[in-house]
Amino acid sequence: MSKQKKQPRPKALPPKGFRDYFGAEVVERGEMLRKIAGVYHRYGFDALESSGVETVEALGKFLPDVDRPNEGVFAWQEDAEADKPGDWLALRYDLTAPLARVYAQHRNDLPTPYRRYAMGPVWRNEKPGPGRFRQFYQCDADTVGAPSVAADAEICMMLADTLEAVGIPRGDYIIRVNNRKVLNGVLEAMGLTEDVERRDAVLRTIDKFDKVGESGVRELLTKGRLDASGAFIDGVGLSDDQAEPVIAFLTSKAETAEATLTNLRAAVSGSNVGEEGVQELEQIAALVAAGGYDTARIDIDPSVVRGLGYYTGPVYEAELTFEIKDEKGRTRNFGSVAGGGRYDDLVKRFTGQAVPATGVSIGVDRLLAALREKGRMTSLAQGPVIVTVMDKNRMADYQAMAAELRAAGIRAEVYLGNPKNFGNQLKYADKRMSPVAVIEGGDEKEKGVVQIKDLILGAQIAETATLEEWKDRPSQFEVPRAELVDKVAEIVALHAPATATSGDL
Amino acid sequence: MSKQKKQPRPKALPPKGFRDYFGAEVVERGEMLRKIAGVYHRYGFDALESSGVETVEALGKFLPDVDRPNEGVFAWQEDAEADKPGDWLALRYDLTAPLARVYAQHRNDLPTPYRRYAMGPVWRNEKPGPGRFRQFYQCDADTVGAPSVAADAEICMMLADTLEAVGIPRGDYIIRVNNRKVLNGVLEAMGLTEDVERRDAVLRTIDKFDKVGESGVRELLTKGRLDASGAFIDGVGLSDDQAEPVIAFLTSKAETAEATLTNLRAAVSGSNVGEEGVQELEQIAALVAAGGYDTARIDIDPSVVRGLGYYTGPVYEAELTFEIKDEKGRTRNFGSVAGGGRYDDLVKRFTGQAVPATGVSIGVDRLLAALREKGRMTSLAQGPVIVTVMDKNRMADYQAMAAELRAAGIRAEVYLGNPKNFGNQLKYADKRMSPVAVIEGGDEKEKGVVQIKDLILGAQIAETATLEEWKDRPSQFEVPRAELVDKVAEIVALHAPATATSGDL
Repeated sequence: MSKQKKQPRPKALPPKGFRDYFGAEVVERGEMLRKIAGVYHRYGFDALESSGVETVEALGKFLPDVDRPNEGVFAWQEDAEADKPGDWLALRYDLTAPLARVYAQHRNDLPTPYRRYAMGPVWRNEKPGPGRFRQFYQCDADTVGAPSVAADAEICMMLADTLEAVGIPRGDYIIRVNNRKVLNGVLEAMGLTEDVERRDAVLRTIDKFDKVGESGVRELLTKGRLDASGAFIDGVGLSDDQAEPVIAFLTSKAETAEATLTNLRAAVSGSNVGEEGVQELEQIAALVAAGGYDTARIDIDPSVVRGLGYYTGPVYEAELTFEIKDEKGRTRNFGSVAGGGRYDDLVKRFTGQAVPATGVSIGVDRLLAALREKGRMTSLAQGPVIVTVMDKNRMADYQAMAAELRAAGIRAEVYLGNPKNFGNQLKYADKRMSPVAVIEGGDEKEKGVVQIKDLILGAQIAETATLEEWKDRPSQFEVPRAELVDKVAEIVALHAPATATSGDL
Repeated sequence: MSKQKKQPRPKALPPKGFRDYFGAEVVERGEMLRKIAGVYHRYGFDALESSGVETVEALGKFLPDVDRPNEGVFAWQEDAEADKPGDWLALRYDLTAPLARVYAQHRNDLPTPYRRYAMGPVWRNEKPGPGRFRQFYQCDADTVGAPSVAADAEICMMLADTLEAVGIPRGDYIIRVNNRKVLNGVLEAMGLTEDVERRDAVLRTIDKFDKVGESGVRELLTKGRLDASGAFIDGVGLSDDQAEPVIAFLTSKAETAEATLTNLRAAVSGSNVGEEGVQELEQIAALVAAGGYDTARIDIDPSVVRGLGYYTGPVYEAELTFEIKDEKGRTRNFGSVAGGGRYDDLVKRFTGQAVPATGVSIGVDRLLAALREKGRMTSLAQGPVIVTVMDKNRMADYQAMAAELRAAGIRAEVYLGNPKNFGNQLKYADKRMSPVAVIEGGDEKEKGVVQIKDLILGAQIAETATLEEWKDRPSQFEVPRAELVDKVAEIVALHAPATATSGDL
């Protein structure tokens, strides 16, 4: 620690927008990421862990005409060396920019295609808000150097397997696939390819489809729209006829993939790139069908618009379809937990060469929230068995009990606070969410027994029992010392949730 | 990605002193940390993941009379808000300073004692050197709020269990325990308690015991010493007699713990704090012996000096005792992989109250290196089975094969590069360290068979076989399509190292 000068005491707080994660939160996230990594690994993806710090130059965030990199990242300047000014460094803001740097750096040594997954924290220098933190986890898988849409289909199938592996049952999710090229075809058919300004306005409007729906998009593409707050949003200024192909594209989802593709073909009629896009979707549909993934799991759906402006080819999104209550008590679908697509200029900034790439990013916190919602994440909150201390000169005896319990795979510890007040030991056990307390005083020691207190049953009785029942304390009983481990194991198993995983972690 | 102005291309390099980790390196570290977390969890320790960013104030690195925090950390100033200058933020440089902040912040909600473990990257703004990086992993376990040395004994036993759990066999490690209080007793017995300058000189000298040995320390405590480079190092200036108690302390290790403790008692004779320190070591020896840990695993050893100046009570260090060759080909012990001890001013900076704490930090990279040295880490390098593409119109067939293999727990992928040149597919498989390539051309498809190529056997034959033997290609054979999975599983199992773990990760 540093030298103490006479300073005011520091505040015991993390910086604004940062938080700490405790116990089960950490373990649950770790377990989920491990299951995801297991699926990725089985698909041939290799782990990559790049450093948290990059040069601002490599991140592509440097603005040459200002002293400081822009605000989206946490950045600082290295100390000058000799007469050279120090480099600007920054914390990574996603896992894609570092992948671009790593691939450009190691492209001669890495296999092509390079399938890699990465998981870890990223940092955003943004205004924090409720539930919005400046450090959070991302979990990505990307295939670099594979032009074929078989790579996109593979990632969609892998995403389906991943969701099931972490505990989202089939039927509770759908992966929806769209294609930027089809949209480009629609825009071409509309004659908007050259009119960049208007094209971008249409793209921005399409991005709002999730929020405002078909009629909203129709208004925004034409004469404008009064939004919920009463403000008037200017329209793009198309005629109703001109807007029609966009609407047709967004609503072309039909009962079967074949019918959807037929609708799309009509929407892009006469556009080569549009036709190519429809063909790609057709290939993806065929590949996933052959892989045994029916349209209830992976489906062609042109209403997927998230990221459609950013990606250059197939776009995919995983949505959880089970219902939850939102903050206002309304029922709605859980919604999106992962998304991705194809982007072909990944390493161009570094090498000048376009390299095709496609990848997915899982929203780690959203998926964890979904698993908690589904009750898949309760087992890990169980606390340790507490071996209480009745005689502090017999710590060795108590440590031996804890060691025996651990050897049987049971989480256990000796109380290490001041043992004088036994009530404090039970309060501690309560705070730890312990299932069992073990008690061995002088009497028990002499008789060769231990007291076992079932704390969960005890709490249930305390809530419902009369004073007489409570006095009988059926939740506490005596067993021979030799039966300690078996009896405790029995109670722990009794209280472990059905989804409990194995002993370690 | 950011807008492209006409800038020179960015360099595809991480900042100086940072590096990337690929594939097995990442997975192996993750697996090791998971095993460690499993042991910690079983001992009742709870996970804590604090943010990577702290206020400089909370880290205790702020120098009030300079503009910039000192150089040990990566720090930057937040933008000013209203007329308030922004806070200085910094990346954490260890996991102990954040623990202090978290405990001070949440002390009313956390259990006491609070056992927590933490693992993750830390950052040091230091000059990088060979093998010295500016981002690296730490893995700590600490018990806060337990004054009893039973907490120290527990951590020593947990450390022994941890080393065995990750794959260091009993006999290949020793955990050695010393106590700062005993050293304080020695200094008191020497009359050096008040002579702070001389006491600190003695402490610094003791710190060199590992390097210069008994005779070196004797010289440095007295008249000085000529070091290996020929430079003369001034001595502390004690007489031979005055230096004797320090030497007696450092060399008091005897055959049995009892004999060592007797030696120590003599060395601190007349000092209360020294006597207390010896008693603490005695308690620790008794607790670990009762726990079944003999002195070949955990031993009292006053020659442990690392951190003795920093800690306030028991100090412990885990050393791996098996031999390795160093860079110069000399045989030496692998050495230290973990260390820790008791420090009682953890949260005092924040709250003004001293809170007893004891904890251990595992050198993640050193322990990983040790496991690689012991051959415990080879299984994960095996690449995926490659399903080659003979006809790009039959991708669905190939994807189905890969899916079948994965469903059987076998890592597998379809080749997604340009399939035209079959040689490139095999080169790719080679780069991926694939055990098997699967081949199904038109002929095979018609006959209902697939070709299976055992790439590892193939490589062995290529190294040793004559041209005739090579031509027979016994490493490649045909099996009915229906037997694909069984046959591949057989070959993969054959080549999997003995220590291979289960399918996922």
